[in-house]
Amino acid sequence: MTQEATEADVRAAVEAAEAAFGAAPFRPGDDAMRADLLDALADALAAERHALVALADAETHLGADRLYGELLRTVRQLEMCAELAREGAWLDPVIDTAIDAPPPYGRPDIRRINEALGPVAVFAASNFPFAFSVLGNDFASAFAVGCPVVLKTHPGHPETSAAVAKIAASILPEGALSVLYGTGYGANLHLVQARAIRAAGFTGSLGGGRALLSAIDQRADPIPFFGELGAVNPVVVCPEAANARGAALGQTLATGATMSMGQFCTNPGVILRPAGAAEFDDAFMSGIAKAPRHALLNERIDAGFAKGAETLKASPGVTMKDAMGHLVFSISAADFAASEIAREEVFGPATLLVSYEGEADLMAAVDALEGSLTASLHADPADDALADEIEPRLRRIAGRVLYAGVSPGVALTDAMVHGGPFPSSTRGDSSSVGALSLTRWTRPVAYQSCPARRLPPGLDDENARGLTRRVNGAVTRGPVSAHPAEQADDKGRMKTWRND
Amino acid sequence: MTQEATEADVRAAVEAAEAAFGAAPFRPGDDAMRADLLDALADALAAERHALVALADAETHLGADRLYGELLRTVRQLEMCAELAREGAWLDPVIDTAIDAPPPYGRPDIRRINEALGPVAVFAASNFPFAFSVLGNDFASAFAVGCPVVLKTHPGHPETSAAVAKIAASILPEGALSVLYGTGYGANLHLVQARAIRAAGFTGSLGGGRALLSAIDQRADPIPFFGELGAVNPVVVCPEAANARGAALGQTLATGATMSMGQFCTNPGVILRPAGAAEFDDAFMSGIAKAPRHALLNERIDAGFAKGAETLKASPGVTMKDAMGHLVFSISAADFAASEIAREEVFGPATLLVSYEGEADLMAAVDALEGSLTASLHADPADDALADEIEPRLRRIAGRVLYAGVSPGVALTDAMVHGGPFPSSTRGDSSSVGALSLTRWTRPVAYQSCPARRLPPGLDDENARGLTRRVNGAVTRGPVSAHPAEQADDKGRMKTWRND
Repeated sequence: MTQEATEADVRAAVEAAEAAFGAAPFRPGDDAMRADLLDALADALAAERHALVALADAETHLGADRLYGELLRTVRQLEMCAELAREGAWLDPVIDTAIDAPPPYGRPDIRRINEALGPVAVFAASNFPFAFSVLGNDFASAFAVGCPVVLKTHPGHPETSAAVAKIAASILPEGALSVLYGTGYGANLHLVQARAIRAAGFTGSLGGGRALLSAIDQRADPIPFFGELGAVNPVVVCPEAANARGAALGQTLATGATMSMGQFCTNPGVILRPAGAAEFDDAFMSGIAKAPRHALLNERIDAGFAKGAETLKASPGVTMKDAMGHLVFSISAADFAASEIAREEVFGPATLLVSYEGEADLMAAVDALEGSLTASLHADPADDALADEIEPRLRRIAGRVLYAGVSPGVALTDAMVHGGPFPSSTRGDSSSVGALSLTRWTRPVAYQSCPARRLPPGLDDENARGLTRRVNGAVTRGPVSAHPAEQADDKGRMKTWRND
Repeated sequence: MTQEATEADVRAAVEAAEAAFGAAPFRPGDDAMRADLLDALADALAAERHALVALADAETHLGADRLYGELLRTVRQLEMCAELAREGAWLDPVIDTAIDAPPPYGRPDIRRINEALGPVAVFAASNFPFAFSVLGNDFASAFAVGCPVVLKTHPGHPETSAAVAKIAASILPEGALSVLYGTGYGANLHLVQARAIRAAGFTGSLGGGRALLSAIDQRADPIPFFGELGAVNPVVVCPEAANARGAALGQTLATGATMSMGQFCTNPGVILRPAGAAEFDDAFMSGIAKAPRHALLNERIDAGFAKGAETLKASPGVTMKDAMGHLVFSISAADFAASEIAREEVFGPATLLVSYEGEADLMAAVDALEGSLTASLHADPADDALADEIEPRLRRIAGRVLYAGVSPGVALTDAMVHGGPFPSSTRGDSSSVGALSLTRWTRPVAYQSCPARRLPPGLDDENARGLTRRVNGAVTRGPVSAHPAEQADDKGRMKTWRND
């Protein structure tokens, strides 16, 4: 059942997805049908939770606490995508009715709405056997907007994937979700190069992501690629904050850095704190030492971690302390700013502590940071002048800026951004969690001078579905007739433009 | 003044842009300052219109009628971007306040808003010396959201570009718009590979766009690339429409196909109409013959056109008629579906007429179409059954679907989409015209547990600016206090999840 997918398997899966697209529940306006299916999937996952957690624990070592939490999150993601599909904000309908005047002040009737891209490819992650796997958020968000999904499972948890796929197959129509297995890269490349595949989502390594990106760029028509390829999730602890609450911050960040053995995409891998912040350092090291331990996800992760740690340890200016298997590296801000290696993610139980001596020293290190899913700024009001300098820099590199708490664990909300500049995402304008995750799988299509009988659902004059729309510039749930078009002020140009 | 840009020139321009970013008028909340500058640019262009049109006509041969129209459109684009900057819909602010419960039902306070990417590169187009050049919509939209621009002019109209750049320099602050000149590709590659450049916009050939895309992919951090690389803008004339109003449609489409000698990005290059539609064909050919003629933009376009026409003429099943310099090619739907060459854009005065014999024949040709800026469907109610089959296919390939009129000429509205799947755009989710053109140059940033004193403008509790925002799921212009957070229904899971 979980056999290595062949090229023929890929072709059959893509053909099934393409055949499904265009028929129910994938037609424009079928949103409520898909929402009901997402709710049914959520209920079915919840019902099977004990068996699923046991399977996943055996395959990933993540432990029951974490896995029950992750499965509940996955259930909630499916339900949230159902709610979003029904509500329809992702459709973003915009209507501009005709204005009878010469261009650029006149216009025909133009209406636009976001439409599903078509069949999409999704690659599951090693570190989330539920939330970023078979019925994870990439599937849920793509299906919510009407894209059939061909999903490649992660080889780190094939049995868990198969059990979830079996649940999905009992509920979803043919072609809505095709699940492929295997460790090889050949099937992955065939999948992203299939003509009918219109976008791809991926969570994994920089190397794996770059390989898929190259394969996509070789297409006659390169498609959107939403890849999450790694992040160091830097944390800046300002001097006054370190002074006033160093012990508490050290404890909190140790908790964040050790969750699931550092195997979160949002793991805080680099912490910049003042040199000589003894209270912070003591609390951090003591928190690290006390944190629970378990095996890493699989042998490949083990090997990658060992290699990354070795490279980091050998970098100029780096020292290392082994706190019961969690490796804590130290480096000066100047050495950090000068070394590319020190800024690369080491996936697993490792933290790099960066010591800064003053503002210029800190700024040099901050300026050297690269795109990241999160950045954290722990600043007291007395740090505000310094924070004013740091904050614009963190905004430029991160998808989410935190001012308290820890970066692992994302909230399932409209406002969430789980993405950021490269390499944290290949599409820094997107999010793989929250309401924005749906929009990824759509594209705006405009309809010009379209007869009412041919308009897609959501662009009708009456607004039968009660969507929030922009009509002739007004945000409204009312009918088009309530918001007539007004011509822009031409400042008298139409009369005098040629002759003055 | 319009000398070939060196690598040092590129570096200096990028440094000026980077230095400008972060200071007024590029800080979050400086939107009204930038809007005032855009209005000043619009007024200055309008004041200099006669001299600018004379310069552009000498360089491009496009004629005064077209150039006055294009310049007025450019003025309106600047004003529209000013209005959009002030109104702030592009900020898309979303606020979710904290819910005190365990995850995934609880959450911290999270607020997101779209922020300017930073300095961006823009490459001007040959065929729009005003509207897609120095103060064209790529500049206007990027500047509107707070991105300094480094702009490479098109070598086809250096004097026009220099005259517009001089106007810009008299109004804009240092670094807001740096203008580079030259015919070589070296400077272009340096520009898109500069570390501080955070996105690039381009309108031009498939080859030129692919070269920039490769250069971007070689960056340590590939950046967004919004390239418009060509489109055939297919038109489908249904049998009943051809029967009932073939003469009128032929005349209309001839007008569209001959505007500016076929040198519009949205030029209708491929027309599928029933075999033997004599009235349509006669009217079309007679319209083509009567259309005004002028020289093509420049010698490179001339040579490219000659080469493209030669290739198309030599393709299997293609015949050609020279209608006073406008080349009309004919091919059967079956041959069209089988030939890649017949689907490639020939930029300039050429039209490919495709004859179809029946529904299956038409569908095969439609299925062979590739991504395009526009697609047109001329169908009468009696054609509706056929249109039901064609329309979903056109939606999948086009950014804009027209049901009347001609594709050249875009309206400056919120709803406009000027983009489409590859090759019409390298980012089919974007538009280079209209309200969507602003969003391209931004990225969402989320703020978690951010103290009120550090929140960026637009995310304040009070909503001082009066933006339309999504607050705890409600679309509102009110304060946060009017829309308290409600916890999602957990279906009793929080109590029983582990123990049932």
